[in-house]
Amino acid sequence: MGAGAVGCAVAWAAAREGLAGEVVLVDPDPGSGASRVAGGMLAPISEAWPGEREVLELGAASLAAWPSFAAAVARDAGCSVGLRREGTLQVAVDAADVEDLDRVAEHLRAWGRVVERLSGRAVRRLEPSLGPSVRAGLAIPDDLAVDNRVLLGALSRAGASRGVVVSRRSVARVVDDGERVTGVAFADGGELEASRVVVAAGAWSAGLHPVLAGRVRPVKGEILRVRARRSSLPPPSRTVRASVSGRPVYAVPRDGGGLVVGATQYEAGFDADVLVGGVRDLVADVERVLPGIADYALEESAASFRPGTDDNLPLLGPVGPVGPAGLVAATGHGRNGMLLVAVTVSALVAVLRGEPLPEEARAAAADRSAVARG
Amino acid sequence: MGAGAVGCAVAWAAAREGLAGEVVLVDPDPGSGASRVAGGMLAPISEAWPGEREVLELGAASLAAWPSFAAAVARDAGCSVGLRREGTLQVAVDAADVEDLDRVAEHLRAWGRVVERLSGRAVRRLEPSLGPSVRAGLAIPDDLAVDNRVLLGALSRAGASRGVVVSRRSVARVVDDGERVTGVAFADGGELEASRVVVAAGAWSAGLHPVLAGRVRPVKGEILRVRARRSSLPPPSRTVRASVSGRPVYAVPRDGGGLVVGATQYEAGFDADVLVGGVRDLVADVERVLPGIADYALEESAASFRPGTDDNLPLLGPVGPVGPAGLVAATGHGRNGMLLVAVTVSALVAVLRGEPLPEEARAAAADRSAVARG
Repeated sequence: MGAGAVGCAVAWAAAREGLAGEVVLVDPDPGSGASRVAGGMLAPISEAWPGEREVLELGAASLAAWPSFAAAVARDAGCSVGLRREGTLQVAVDAADVEDLDRVAEHLRAWGRVVERLSGRAVRRLEPSLGPSVRAGLAIPDDLAVDNRVLLGALSRAGASRGVVVSRRSVARVVDDGERVTGVAFADGGELEASRVVVAAGAWSAGLHPVLAGRVRPVKGEILRVRARRSSLPPPSRTVRASVSGRPVYAVPRDGGGLVVGATQYEAGFDADVLVGGVRDLVADVERVLPGIADYALEESAASFRPGTDDNLPLLGPVGPVGPAGLVAATGHGRNGMLLVAVTVSALVAVLRGEPLPEEARAAAADRSAVARG
Repeated sequence: MGAGAVGCAVAWAAAREGLAGEVVLVDPDPGSGASRVAGGMLAPISEAWPGEREVLELGAASLAAWPSFAAAVARDAGCSVGLRREGTLQVAVDAADVEDLDRVAEHLRAWGRVVERLSGRAVRRLEPSLGPSVRAGLAIPDDLAVDNRVLLGALSRAGASRGVVVSRRSVARVVDDGERVTGVAFADGGELEASRVVVAAGAWSAGLHPVLAGRVRPVKGEILRVRARRSSLPPPSRTVRASVSGRPVYAVPRDGGGLVVGATQYEAGFDADVLVGGVRDLVADVERVLPGIADYALEESAASFRPGTDDNLPLLGPVGPVGPAGLVAATGHGRNGMLLVAVTVSALVAVLRGEPLPEEARAAAADRSAVARG
């Protein structure tokens, strides 16, 4: 259930590995949720960095798995997944930011990542689109990024090549007999029988079975999609991240001169409006770092909902002793869905084979709260 | 040629008056040009006010004709044209603006218009959404406004009710035999025979016949469409106009809590990109006057091209001694297309009847340059 990046990837992998007689991907509007609005940074550094060790370890494991995941999807899809290898530049615009950069650099080095601390001038030499307010930077050349919409297209093709069936219907809830799941009930009536149900409905997951209630909440985010014009300064080739007036902002390059600028963050339920003030802040913050963007074309502003969890770790695998057998979660990926899709796929393949969660995914076990509560 | 507000209105009126055997409205994408992006103020006050006496007189004549034009369209369409009668508030945010207000008030009174000069507090009492930076205002209660998209829909229905045929094809040029027009040639081949051709293609008019070359140029404008949310301060009920940092800005209410915020102005050819910097300026300027707009939903940002002329008057009627007989212009309406559609219709009905242009439209005679040049 759910044809975002995670649902599409799990469906594809399950079909490829022959883990079910038939794999049906159910979504009233495939590829329309948070995956469509994502920036696509594949960087295991959250705005909460440093901290949240388990979130970072899971992200690092997924980053390591991404190239082979991408290659496998591309093989089945017969097209690119939109992976970019230009790396990230984290930049600082004030003194506090510069201190942050040094802390981040230290932690990344402790993790064995390659990082390079750069002066403002050196940063502008690398990316001439960065403005004079940038005082320092940190190059993280091994960070990856992905074009979220190219990835969604590739996952859809890869799934089709393996026989994934797409059902464009709206699911009301998972149905069980008290012990095992028996299928899903559609919002407009009727059921689909299934011996196992993977809930990959992102922020909408909590309403699909009582055992998931309260475990995933929507965290709204807004992005802008802009594009350099012929008259514009060319966009950066690397992902640019900064913090402006305490607000994180990023610009992730796309082929053809595009940039995805993000992202605001609101805890406001399922309010899908793009706010005038949100757009104003994103533009102001990104202009501080990339002043030439004023001459770019604004192609789209969009909002969606990250699936947030209390501990910022996703929910992966069986929902455990409290939930019915056969109910499997692949949700709660927060702001890291694109990054975590690779580790999610390997974790779900193991679970659907009847194996335990792989070591690197254990912290995200969906039954962790149930266990803790028990 | 051209199914914007002007073309649709002229086609409807020509069919209604029985001025042609058949009226064919040709446009590859009806209602998609400047008319779709208009604010819809029906106010004969341009940013050039005071000045341009002939532009203002034409506008005043059209404003006077608007209510009966609207009623006639509504009768044939069987639906509202989206006319609003709440009037305009021109507001001032700095000392220079306050002086401007007094000048505008004086001129409007000299024209016999009802105006009321208001303190900042009185303005905010009328429209509580106006922010504390508003120092003074001018109420112009008789100004009208129209929902441009409702109008386009009504004109389309009214035309259909009178037998106007819509041809969704792209016109390459008007064809003539050296003396008279014989029809139009389509971009993808083929011709439509016609004894008279009305060019109402707005900014795209200049390319359609050599006699129009150089007489209409595109003046790009960008607008935002925003909507008050349940949590928002309600929008103003009147059109609000201001000048912020020397840039004119307006917010025109729509039913259902919508506002159209405009408009930027660029002389940049047919560059249809909405610029990041344009959106930034519109938001900053309108927030200065209506601070609550930060919490509104941004529903759309759009750009189009006003058909500008050298003297800011439209081109109405026969193109004159230089052009072929039967070639009639209804274009060049600049930023005032919605306002001037009423006077344009009565002028074009007269011309298509073989009568001279009505007195109030003479200054806009399409053959004025030809005569001057001759």
